[in-house]
Amino acid sequence: MTGRGHTEGDEAPEVHDVPIGLDAAGTRRETDSMGAVDVPAGRYWGAQTQRSLIHFAIGDDRMPMAVYHAYGHVKKAAAIVNGRTGRLPAWKADLIGRVADEVIAGMLDDHFPLYVWQTGSGTQSNMNTNEVISNRAIQLVGGDLGSKTPIHPNDHVNLGQSSNDTFPTAMHIAAAKTVHEHLLPSVQALHRAIETKAEQWRDVVKIGRTHLEDAVPLTVGQEWSGYAHQLAQALDRVTTSAEALHELAAGGTAVGTGLNAPPGFAGQVAAEIASATGYPFTTATNKFAAQGSLDAMVGASAGLRALAVPLMKIANDIRWLASGPRCGLSELILPANEPGSSIMPGKVNPTQCEAMVMVCLQVLSQDTAIAFAGSQGNFELNAMRPIVISNFLHAATILTDACTNLRRYCIEGVELHREQIDSYVNRSLMLVTALSPVIGYEQASTIAHKADKEGSTLREAALDSGSITAEEFDRAVDPATMVHPAQQDQ
Amino acid sequence: MTGRGHTEGDEAPEVHDVPIGLDAAGTRRETDSMGAVDVPAGRYWGAQTQRSLIHFAIGDDRMPMAVYHAYGHVKKAAAIVNGRTGRLPAWKADLIGRVADEVIAGMLDDHFPLYVWQTGSGTQSNMNTNEVISNRAIQLVGGDLGSKTPIHPNDHVNLGQSSNDTFPTAMHIAAAKTVHEHLLPSVQALHRAIETKAEQWRDVVKIGRTHLEDAVPLTVGQEWSGYAHQLAQALDRVTTSAEALHELAAGGTAVGTGLNAPPGFAGQVAAEIASATGYPFTTATNKFAAQGSLDAMVGASAGLRALAVPLMKIANDIRWLASGPRCGLSELILPANEPGSSIMPGKVNPTQCEAMVMVCLQVLSQDTAIAFAGSQGNFELNAMRPIVISNFLHAATILTDACTNLRRYCIEGVELHREQIDSYVNRSLMLVTALSPVIGYEQASTIAHKADKEGSTLREAALDSGSITAEEFDRAVDPATMVHPAQQDQ
Amino acid sequence: MTGRGHTEGDEAPEVHDVPIGLDAAGTRRETDSMGAVDVPAGRYWGAQTQRSLIHFAIGDDRMPMAVYHAYGHVKKAAAIVNGRTGRLPAWKADLIGRVADEVIAGMLDDHFPLYVWQTGSGTQSNMNTNEVISNRAIQLVGGDLGSKTPIHPNDHVNLGQSSNDTFPTAMHIAAAKTVHEHLLPSVQALHRAIETKAEQWRDVVKIGRTHLEDAVPLTVGQEWSGYAHQLAQALDRVTTSAEALHELAAGGTAVGTGLNAPPGFAGQVAAEIASATGYPFTTATNKFAAQGSLDAMVGASAGLRALAVPLMKIANDIRWLASGPRCGLSELILPANEPGSSIMPGKVNPTQCEAMVMVCLQVLSQDTAIAFAGSQGNFELNAMRPIVISNFLHAATILTDACTNLRRYCIEGVELHREQIDSYVNRSLMLVTALSPVIGYEQASTIAHKADKEGSTLREAALDSGSITAEEFDRAVDPATMVHPAQQDQ
Amino acid sequence: MTGRGHTEGDEAPEVHDVPIGLDAAGTRRETDSMGAVDVPAGRYWGAQTQRSLIHFAIGDDRMPMAVYHAYGHVKKAAAIVNGRTGRLPAWKADLIGRVADEVIAGMLDDHFPLYVWQTGSGTQSNMNTNEVISNRAIQLVGGDLGSKTPIHPNDHVNLGQSSNDTFPTAMHIAAAKTVHEHLLPSVQALHRAIETKAEQWRDVVKIGRTHLEDAVPLTVGQEWSGYAHQLAQALDRVTTSAEALHELAAGGTAVGTGLNAPPGFAGQVAAEIASATGYPFTTATNKFAAQGSLDAMVGASAGLRALAVPLMKIANDIRWLASGPRCGLSELILPANEPGSSIMPGKVNPTQCEAMVMVCLQVLSQDTAIAFAGSQGNFELNAMRPIVISNFLHAATILTDACTNLRRYCIEGVELHREQIDSYVNRSLMLVTALSPVIGYEQASTIAHKADKEGSTLREAALDSGSITAEEFDRAVDPATMVHPAQQDQ
Repeated sequence: MTGRGHTEGDEAPEVHDVPIGLDAAGTRRETDSMGAVDVPAGRYWGAQTQRSLIHFAIGDDRMPMAVYHAYGHVKKAAAIVNGRTGRLPAWKADLIGRVADEVIAGMLDDHFPLYVWQTGSGTQSNMNTNEVISNRAIQLVGGDLGSKTPIHPNDHVNLGQSSNDTFPTAMHIAAAKTVHEHLLPSVQALHRAIETKAEQWRDVVKIGRTHLEDAVPLTVGQEWSGYAHQLAQALDRVTTSAEALHELAAGGTAVGTGLNAPPGFAGQVAAEIASATGYPFTTATNKFAAQGSLDAMVGASAGLRALAVPLMKIANDIRWLASGPRCGLSELILPANEPGSSIMPGKVNPTQCEAMVMVCLQVLSQDTAIAFAGSQGNFELNAMRPIVISNFLHAATILTDACTNLRRYCIEGVELHREQIDSYVNRSLMLVTALSPVIGYEQASTIAHKADKEGSTLREAALDSGSITAEEFDRAVDPATMVHPAQQDQ
Repeated sequence: MTGRGHTEGDEAPEVHDVPIGLDAAGTRRETDSMGAVDVPAGRYWGAQTQRSLIHFAIGDDRMPMAVYHAYGHVKKAAAIVNGRTGRLPAWKADLIGRVADEVIAGMLDDHFPLYVWQTGSGTQSNMNTNEVISNRAIQLVGGDLGSKTPIHPNDHVNLGQSSNDTFPTAMHIAAAKTVHEHLLPSVQALHRAIETKAEQWRDVVKIGRTHLEDAVPLTVGQEWSGYAHQLAQALDRVTTSAEALHELAAGGTAVGTGLNAPPGFAGQVAAEIASATGYPFTTATNKFAAQGSLDAMVGASAGLRALAVPLMKIANDIRWLASGPRCGLSELILPANEPGSSIMPGKVNPTQCEAMVMVCLQVLSQDTAIAFAGSQGNFELNAMRPIVISNFLHAATILTDACTNLRRYCIEGVELHREQIDSYVNRSLMLVTALSPVIGYEQASTIAHKADKEGSTLREAALDSGSITAEEFDRAVDPATMVHPAQQDQ
Repeated sequence: MTGRGHTEGDEAPEVHDVPIGLDAAGTRRETDSMGAVDVPAGRYWGAQTQRSLIHFAIGDDRMPMAVYHAYGHVKKAAAIVNGRTGRLPAWKADLIGRVADEVIAGMLDDHFPLYVWQTGSGTQSNMNTNEVISNRAIQLVGGDLGSKTPIHPNDHVNLGQSSNDTFPTAMHIAAAKTVHEHLLPSVQALHRAIETKAEQWRDVVKIGRTHLEDAVPLTVGQEWSGYAHQLAQALDRVTTSAEALHELAAGGTAVGTGLNAPPGFAGQVAAEIASATGYPFTTATNKFAAQGSLDAMVGASAGLRALAVPLMKIANDIRWLASGPRCGLSELILPANEPGSSIMPGKVNPTQCEAMVMVCLQVLSQDTAIAFAGSQGNFELNAMRPIVISNFLHAATILTDACTNLRRYCIEGVELHREQIDSYVNRSLMLVTALSPVIGYEQASTIAHKADKEGSTLREAALDSGSITAEEFDRAVDPATMVHPAQQDQ
Repeated sequence: MTGRGHTEGDEAPEVHDVPIGLDAAGTRRETDSMGAVDVPAGRYWGAQTQRSLIHFAIGDDRMPMAVYHAYGHVKKAAAIVNGRTGRLPAWKADLIGRVADEVIAGMLDDHFPLYVWQTGSGTQSNMNTNEVISNRAIQLVGGDLGSKTPIHPNDHVNLGQSSNDTFPTAMHIAAAKTVHEHLLPSVQALHRAIETKAEQWRDVVKIGRTHLEDAVPLTVGQEWSGYAHQLAQALDRVTTSAEALHELAAGGTAVGTGLNAPPGFAGQVAAEIASATGYPFTTATNKFAAQGSLDAMVGASAGLRALAVPLMKIANDIRWLASGPRCGLSELILPANEPGSSIMPGKVNPTQCEAMVMVCLQVLSQDTAIAFAGSQGNFELNAMRPIVISNFLHAATILTDACTNLRRYCIEGVELHREQIDSYVNRSLMLVTALSPVIGYEQASTIAHKADKEGSTLREAALDSGSITAEEFDRAVDPATMVHPAQQDQ
């Protein structure tokens, strides 16, 4: 016999165009290898999903929908390959593919209720997908829900697959799509907004600050070009570190050997997923590494961190430069989006920056969770998958939104407080640095200390010192030329 | 005087018993000090809440409801004190208190939509509370929503308060209640379940393991008494570290000086909150510390971590001891709650332990977020409040639920695999340790190595060595007495 | 049988007063249960120490000397108890105790060379101690080094002990002594220095800042009282969280059962250690928990973190308040301890604060290492001991020194820039808050915005608005009374 | 002209071949812009180094020598460029270069005593280098130590430089060299050793384990190929993430504008450093980003973490697989490098694995320190430099050494316990998975549960079930073919 698991000889039933939804009330009996369970009659899921809902009601963290949408791609690709190689009759493959398309499109989202804190391999989310596809397919051909006929969750939807290879595959698809379709565009837009400001303010001379203390001048545009460059490099890091996500474990099945998957399955499934998504997915070179580790996810998370670190610096700089309005640095004026205080009338606070700083701290700590979880694999499986994908997608999402909001409600509307900026440049003592090549570091230092002590201007102290003439001073100490010493070579 | 802060002479309007809810469709115009905003007509919130919804749509993390329920206590306590001291007419105080009770009871939850990632002081959640109470009170007296008359969100609901003192107050109330009402009972139940097992198995001798390697024997009950003791100590740590939450900042207002709050306000508000909640809340000794820092929250989070650390060890031990069934340690048999694998039929996995391990890793990383956020305060405010309270309540909640589930679906049903346990004890070479006081460490070591090399039993190797008689051996090497050397003094 | 392991009947040899040191050159042959090894002839250590030096040459991190000094207490206490109960002849017990005193006093430090990154139980450091005491004792009685006669490292020095109970015991002793003898005094001195400043400046009114933005005034003394209070609470947290260190594992031997230790041993050893050190050490209630976990160390580390968090806030506040001198907040003037810049003459930087901030970040990350290591125990042993104790002692030490230096070279010499402080108070718009109870939040807000837009003073804008008279304004808006609204009740 | 920056007209003095060393006793008076300080007469350092030693005696963490060796390259390159462009007379440039070569070679290491916890820009280590080069140069030409003549620490050695650009430059050089010259070779050797084992054992069939539970078989070689692949990918991540270290800040001077550096300086200095070191160093595209951030270091640290994560998994796998010898998994036999226990004779522990696990935890936490420090920059400087470079170099070094030791003392000597491995394969029930395609998942599951319950073999249970013939069973269930299902396509 061939195929007690499935029966290629099955007559293809007619597929009806039944809209999504089950209008039954009460419960329906579903079974799995451990017995029968009652499930809500209005849901497609089966026994294993229901068991998981009972046993893992932990907090309110749900497996992100992006994982299921990605799983739709996995199930569809597997069905196509299984159909092509005759392991599934064409009509079964088509039917699974059709329902998988509904999963991909988010049309079955209400049927994926599981918690993040479940089995560490994501088996229950895989079975949730298998069960929903099975029952929805059964509905489409007019079968009995829960009968597993003609589409069986394990023998057909999961054919040639294990959670151990498909869950990491779905993770990679979900993570890659989130990075490319949400995160990168948002950060790129923020980057452009900052570059625009850098360009706009490129000739505004301001005082530099190091150690929080007055330093030599630069232009506002130079300062912001630094922010822009940090983001450009972070964008590179995100992109580079996400590349390893393109390697997919699918085809390794239970432990990486590919048991129960036919020859060529792994590569073909990856090719189908690549074709369907438009990303250069390929089958992982070594399935034992792909399934025993979460290294690619840890690496991709380092990319998120590479964004959070400069974003935190930029957000902090902006809120400090906007501090005041009368008792702070007050170089920047931020858009007033809302009343700042419930008790202090008229107060405006750097709220977008604060939200960004908190988001960055959150991303840094979620990255820590991912790295430690990544270290906790054993043998043929790293069973820390749900914690990793949920933190990754969450971190990517809040970064995405925080960048969009910071851009819209802060960066695009920020203005310069020119009087204050000019006044600082004129008052600063650190312009003395320009005297150093002329009169030496120590003499220059004496002049700066003298001005500080006497409350005089640098020019007064310098001329008083007798070590330089007024003409020499004015030639050396010109903020506008100090910011462009012409050596900005690469 | 009219139009001023509040109007003591106001005639008390009639309060109608209007059920919660606004059946208007479309939008309603609300105003704040920055102008007018359209809000959904079916919601009580006002202009500042609406602004925040627009500007801070970051991810899907919402300020936890526990914060608003706690805020209900703050608003009610303030109203009582303001009423008692004549700063509010009695009927206004009563009206605010009545609506605050609805907030406390969770009846207005749908009207608190704000995101976690907002202003760092929580001002917008404070204003959300003020606005909702204002409008709901207005509804109860038949006034015009949005008119701020007769109950003004700032001048009445927020009277004598700032976000800077009330948000940390609400944080402390929410955190303390979550710890005492949810977390501790769940962990205590787990602790008792483990103690029960320890008692039940107190005489089952098993092999000990150190460095994962065979060591001298102990009883299963002793091993589990260790788990129980770790949890007992962790419960102490949670309790002790949560005590500082009982100090409340309320009364410090904007910067800790208590500006705009009358004499005695701080202490009286704390007393009202203590009385309403049953917890020993008091006013913070130093408001500048209470508002400029989040130290008490960081300390309380260390309590959560103190739980996560032993829970992770316990969950790991259990899943390792249950590994197998035929190729692992296989000393424990866990309840089979669900099919373990989508591809390997009949597989049972330690899923509750895996969920617990992931929860612990998550708690550890959230604790890191809290500690770093705690370090980022400036001057009179630590503006990292929403990230801290959301992580704290989330961590406490998933710990609570994970402990409950681990107990129900794992600990209570775990059984011993006695044959395996006995077999290990009989096979182990480390019983040789009992010979050490008799023949010395080095001679004993030679015997152990000999048995290991030859695959013989320890007894065979010992007698072969000629350094001990059979009688001596049998007297020294008796696992049942080795586990109770009678020195378990305290 | 009596004592093949040891021989109570041994004749007591004469103990010579040989000074510490071995002047032999080249190497000496030492043996252990695995065979012979050459060790440097000038060192007391034996074969196992030498093996460890070879196999664990990882970086340059050495097991801290404080661990060995603490181990001296353990070995001495065990010898006393073993002598008292007749398990060791009195002269052997005395001899071990005498050498242990040399260990405690640091006189044998050169003979403890091992790396941190060794076996996870600290066995090799225990054996290092055993070997050194053995050979030094042998030297004192004129015996042959390496002969293990008459004092055997395992059978005598380690009698009734395992690394699994004594290493955690030494960890607790070392940690407790470091906290109490170094860390707490240093932080207390810093606390007093800050309190002195708070007292000195208690009447200097300054502008408050929340969200980095101008807020209502407080006094410099109030601000610093907040720092002092944060430190006072942190001192409490350090102390409380270190209390669990007083429970000692000694007596649990290999797996917590106390195999090979006589009745009463655990309690007596703890009592001896308590008596010798002056700390209230007791034997751990449950040895399985004490040896299978590092929970007490994780808890104590939370105490270090509880210090790092406020110290980071304080150091950051001070460096921001001292920023300038002409383009920053410039309220504080820090001691100029060194030239700040190699290129900018006359620059003074907040270097003590920067060092403190870095120390705090380091402590926070070391605390993370300790917590994660604490979660990685298995069965009867948490084999992450060296990483935990080395990070703990390092973190405590750099905190100790950083507090001392910050006090000496920054806090004690910091001065106020009174003109700047006064000028901010006079310029600020947020004094408008005091008008809120008089004219309502919204009217007050309008005035503040008006002044901001027009660059006028608050008084000008308020009088212009017509909503308040000059007399009313001057009564309400008085910074000196705003900072003491008389409600500072407790 | 006198007293000015440098004096091109200086007559070149004779350079004597004085060996390194100062044999003066007592102290020498040195000066800086703040006055005079006594320094040890036997050391080359000057006043600023001495001040730093006094003010920053925090713990015993010293700035790593690799930083100074790298600084030697910076100083030499700057001198060459300054000499070439005439800013320094050729003989001065040569003299500085000569002493810089001594610094590079480590010959002056004793003269770099500073602590890690110093000013956040590393200014004091820069000045230490300037002072040592100045005085050593003075010695070589027979001048007066401390006279700063003819080689001035600021005006000549530091010419065209600031700490703010040169310290990050030295950091990048030191980090890149450490990664390429130490870390990568060590990990590559470990990788090869693991690959050799994978090859050697490629046909040994063993049971797979997922969730710690018995799963389907694979070969030992496949399992180890996974380890090898993880390391290969980690090596890629280290290399890629270290590439950004090749961008150097030198030439940006104080705030990134390059003030006081001549045109072309930045690019030329980078070219000289590239030429001297053999690494493709270039000048940073944007100096404001390079100096205001530590993003490249945070990125490179993610590379270290990318190694720690798989190493921890590998070390954990090996110690678990070697657990036993009689009561654990016992598939691997590790070299016995030392006695494992002070109390349990004959015990052998997986000590190299434990050391590696601790090293990995340490690296993970140091990576956290680096990331958080990287987020704490302000304006034109990230003043968290010493904490970042010290943690990075430390982490890289302990990883290097731990990999070397793990290879030598564990991996190269590990052997298989073939009887145990074979026995597990024969006993396992999960071979049932191979029946799934034949008889379906549910029928297969029933058989596995039956065998488990009855303690029978899988074959017995399968034949008993009547759902398969003996011949079918034997064809499907053959471990040797199950591990190579021929689909290992790429």
